[in-house]
Amino acid sequence: MNLKYIGKDKESKRVIDLGDNVKIGNENFTIIGGPCSVESKEQISKIAKFLFEKNVKILRGGAFKPRTSPYSFQGLGLKGLKYLKDSAEKYQLKIISEILDPRDVEKSIDYIDIIQIGSRNMQNYALLKEVGKFNKPIMLKRGMNATIEEWLMAAEYIALEGNENIVLCERGIRTFDNFTRNTLDMTAVPILKGLTKLPVIVDPSHGTGIRHLVSPMSKAAAAVGADGIMVEVHFNPEEALSDGHQSIDFREFQELIDETKKIYDCIY
Amino acid sequence: MNLKYIGKDKESKRVIDLGDNVKIGNENFTIIGGPCSVESKEQISKIAKFLFEKNVKILRGGAFKPRTSPYSFQGLGLKGLKYLKDSAEKYQLKIISEILDPRDVEKSIDYIDIIQIGSRNMQNYALLKEVGKFNKPIMLKRGMNATIEEWLMAAEYIALEGNENIVLCERGIRTFDNFTRNTLDMTAVPILKGLTKLPVIVDPSHGTGIRHLVSPMSKAAAAVGADGIMVEVHFNPEEALSDGHQSIDFREFQELIDETKKIYDCIY
Amino acid sequence: MNLKYIGKDKESKRVIDLGDNVKIGNENFTIIGGPCSVESKEQISKIAKFLFEKNVKILRGGAFKPRTSPYSFQGLGLKGLKYLKDSAEKYQLKIISEILDPRDVEKSIDYIDIIQIGSRNMQNYALLKEVGKFNKPIMLKRGMNATIEEWLMAAEYIALEGNENIVLCERGIRTFDNFTRNTLDMTAVPILKGLTKLPVIVDPSHGTGIRHLVSPMSKAAAAVGADGIMVEVHFNPEEALSDGHQSIDFREFQELIDETKKIYDCIY
Amino acid sequence: MNLKYIGKDKESKRVIDLGDNVKIGNENFTIIGGPCSVESKEQISKIAKFLFEKNVKILRGGAFKPRTSPYSFQGLGLKGLKYLKDSAEKYQLKIISEILDPRDVEKSIDYIDIIQIGSRNMQNYALLKEVGKFNKPIMLKRGMNATIEEWLMAAEYIALEGNENIVLCERGIRTFDNFTRNTLDMTAVPILKGLTKLPVIVDPSHGTGIRHLVSPMSKAAAAVGADGIMVEVHFNPEEALSDGHQSIDFREFQELIDETKKIYDCIY
Repeated sequence: MNLKYIGKDKESKRVIDLGDNVKIGNENFTIIGGPCSVESKEQISKIAKFLFEKNVKILRGGAFKPRTSPYSFQGLGLKGLKYLKDSAEKYQLKIISEILDPRDVEKSIDYIDIIQIGSRNMQNYALLKEVGKFNKPIMLKRGMNATIEEWLMAAEYIALEGNENIVLCERGIRTFDNFTRNTLDMTAVPILKGLTKLPVIVDPSHGTGIRHLVSPMSKAAAAVGADGIMVEVHFNPEEALSDGHQSIDFREFQELIDETKKIYDCIY
Repeated sequence: MNLKYIGKDKESKRVIDLGDNVKIGNENFTIIGGPCSVESKEQISKIAKFLFEKNVKILRGGAFKPRTSPYSFQGLGLKGLKYLKDSAEKYQLKIISEILDPRDVEKSIDYIDIIQIGSRNMQNYALLKEVGKFNKPIMLKRGMNATIEEWLMAAEYIALEGNENIVLCERGIRTFDNFTRNTLDMTAVPILKGLTKLPVIVDPSHGTGIRHLVSPMSKAAAAVGADGIMVEVHFNPEEALSDGHQSIDFREFQELIDETKKIYDCIY
Repeated sequence: MNLKYIGKDKESKRVIDLGDNVKIGNENFTIIGGPCSVESKEQISKIAKFLFEKNVKILRGGAFKPRTSPYSFQGLGLKGLKYLKDSAEKYQLKIISEILDPRDVEKSIDYIDIIQIGSRNMQNYALLKEVGKFNKPIMLKRGMNATIEEWLMAAEYIALEGNENIVLCERGIRTFDNFTRNTLDMTAVPILKGLTKLPVIVDPSHGTGIRHLVSPMSKAAAAVGADGIMVEVHFNPEEALSDGHQSIDFREFQELIDETKKIYDCIY
Repeated sequence: MNLKYIGKDKESKRVIDLGDNVKIGNENFTIIGGPCSVESKEQISKIAKFLFEKNVKILRGGAFKPRTSPYSFQGLGLKGLKYLKDSAEKYQLKIISEILDPRDVEKSIDYIDIIQIGSRNMQNYALLKEVGKFNKPIMLKRGMNATIEEWLMAAEYIALEGNENIVLCERGIRTFDNFTRNTLDMTAVPILKGLTKLPVIVDPSHGTGIRHLVSPMSKAAAAVGADGIMVEVHFNPEEALSDGHQSIDFREFQELIDETKKIYDCIY
């Protein structure tokens, strides 16, 4: 595996600095929260306020949504990014949101602090090369059927263009088992930490697809050495326009933070 | 599964008409041949001449290559398309070649008769929507881990933009078994023929990754009702810049045509 | 891969001789038919009579049934084998039936012409060693997640005990796709024929789990070089105690024989 | 899913009592250690002494070994069980060892405190029924490609015969990824704890197949709510007759205990 960039100097772990003392990597356990999709100004504002009160610093929310069916809700697009930006400024949050199209990168870049490359696009090399040209942190999610090597080579595509501010996100792989939406591969975390200098985040929401499994898998992520988690949270999961069954509510999110931090503090 | 466009009127099987009496679908068994990558003007010309002599009408060849590693040969790009076009004109062939980037569609379109969407991009919705806007046949390869439903929904993305000239190409899925590069899912052929009106092509080269399995799987494709096969052929597979181990040589290609046609003729 | 027994002298293809001029392997394309489970004397007799009339020489039927749930129908056991034997004698058929327990081998052996080792027991080494001690043909089905190597090593366990009368049966592997019950790996056929001297049979009934896919996959099996097929047939599939959705009826079975033979004759 | 026995009264978690105050389940985090295979009296004695000193109460060691190839070391059989028994008595340990053949159950039962049913035999119903007849704790490992439902139905087979002293052991499933030997499905732990009353153990040695991943995955097991871990340990892993690459040495085992207990204590 030729990891010329992301495998270089791997002892000096890379810290992604988002400004205002918000960092991913090394001595931090970062919790990222937010809805699956940006649905309205009010929805995002309400969730942003909650995260602010809980001292969570990074807000997730999909504006460009990759959906299996062209007949499903496709997201609010640029308008969604503006809603995110408004709430983020009000509540001093950083924003992570997915970009699907290389032609959208430049016009979206002022609204986003971390560009997410989603599972379906992990090997979309045109997109990887495009985001590699900007000096903006990237979260690269694992493809549903990507081997460790394919995933790291995809990160190398970004780094080769000049952008080494990459966070890897394990979000579950596709297996024969259909009890959960995906099979969260927790072993990927120590493997990636051993092979690269990049921070690793776990997404237990997509990784399981089942609300009551989000908290135990978040604890496992902390124990196994991940640099943080990204969790779908909504004030009313039942009403969410997408992925409500895997979103947790505000009370559950509070418990998850408490329990996960307890494990993290216990190790470090 | 909402197959509003590709599932409509499925008894009236769609025939993709490439002009000059070259067609895919219905009473034809189409053989597409060519190298994995366009490597030089001479290479393409030599292979095009061979195909012409064998009465093969469609030439494949990758100009934009999606490679796992950024350090592997990435293809000749637009120059490669020009080489393809030159040879195709000389030998009266139609061209199929892959496009990776939505920004490349418009400038490539005059060089290509069928735009290939590769496995890694099956759910690259920006690309699907872009190619859907043109009136040019599309070959949509199955994603390595795509379910039948996801694959058909991806085709529906293209059709919804106005382009129903779609050919589906089974090219193997990823399983636990590593004896072959992929596991060719031959059952997909009758399933797809039952659910849609679209022609279905089988790619036994990527589907197996092993030269001596290309011919038996081509025969199986004919028997199971596929509308054709797409096969990697090279005058010297050992020297190919990519995928030489799964390419067959000219003599093997001749045998494959003979044997496959025998089965096809036997059924129809 | 150490295939000391089954890989030896592989050019001289092994023919399994069941007596009365019934053979599997080499210049034969064997069709095996029968119900999933033996349900009653009348049921088996009716199906045996039909097979006799169609010139099919081998009757399948499960007496000891391996079922996922202990609450599902577990088969008639030895009584079922007796029903099979009665009908087989009346209609001059050979019998294949599954044995699950090494303690059942000896007492069942007079009722069976081919002992089937099912998917779940492909690596049940106690059972493999036991059946290897008898001079009775064995059909070794592929495990649901067995690699080619594991499957052949399991056959080698039997051969090492002294019994080389082994038929391999491809019956589908487990993948992420759930459109079909299993993914029939047709490529296994030429691979196995290249590595061993053993005959290879395809089971399109378990391999797909869907009635209307049995016929196309049987044709693919003939085209790809299999030595035969094993198909579930029932006079009234809707009433079958197990696997009715993948069983075909008498009319469909007749068509399947005709179409499959046409392809086979066309090749040889 | 009809879990009539193992799903009954699931709030009252079952504790497996092995006597001498050694228990699995509920308020305990059990560590099981030992070599992959019993190789000699001296080897087992040396490892047993080490475990005794570390206050580990359960010794694992394979006497009947299910090996992919008949040409690999098949274990010492009954002699191996005697070696285990001798060391266990000397060092006050309980023994877990695998049984493969229903005919071996009765004669082995006095040597073993927990009968292990291995992955390959998870659906060996003859064996499941046999061990269900005895009043001896069973550890049922997950099949390499078993769904949660199939696994629990296999446990139900044992319980239906009268033996509800069952421990479930997650040991990794087979996926497309080949970086690790198996993909350890940590999410199975909270799922199983929610569906049944049975204790759940994690095997990070087989689950990863890589020595340096054993410790992080043991910590994840503790965090996610498992009742314990089973780990391969050897005084000289390089010399082990089987699975040395996934066995840890005495020093690594000590560290693993310390770190895992820290997480466990932190939660409870």
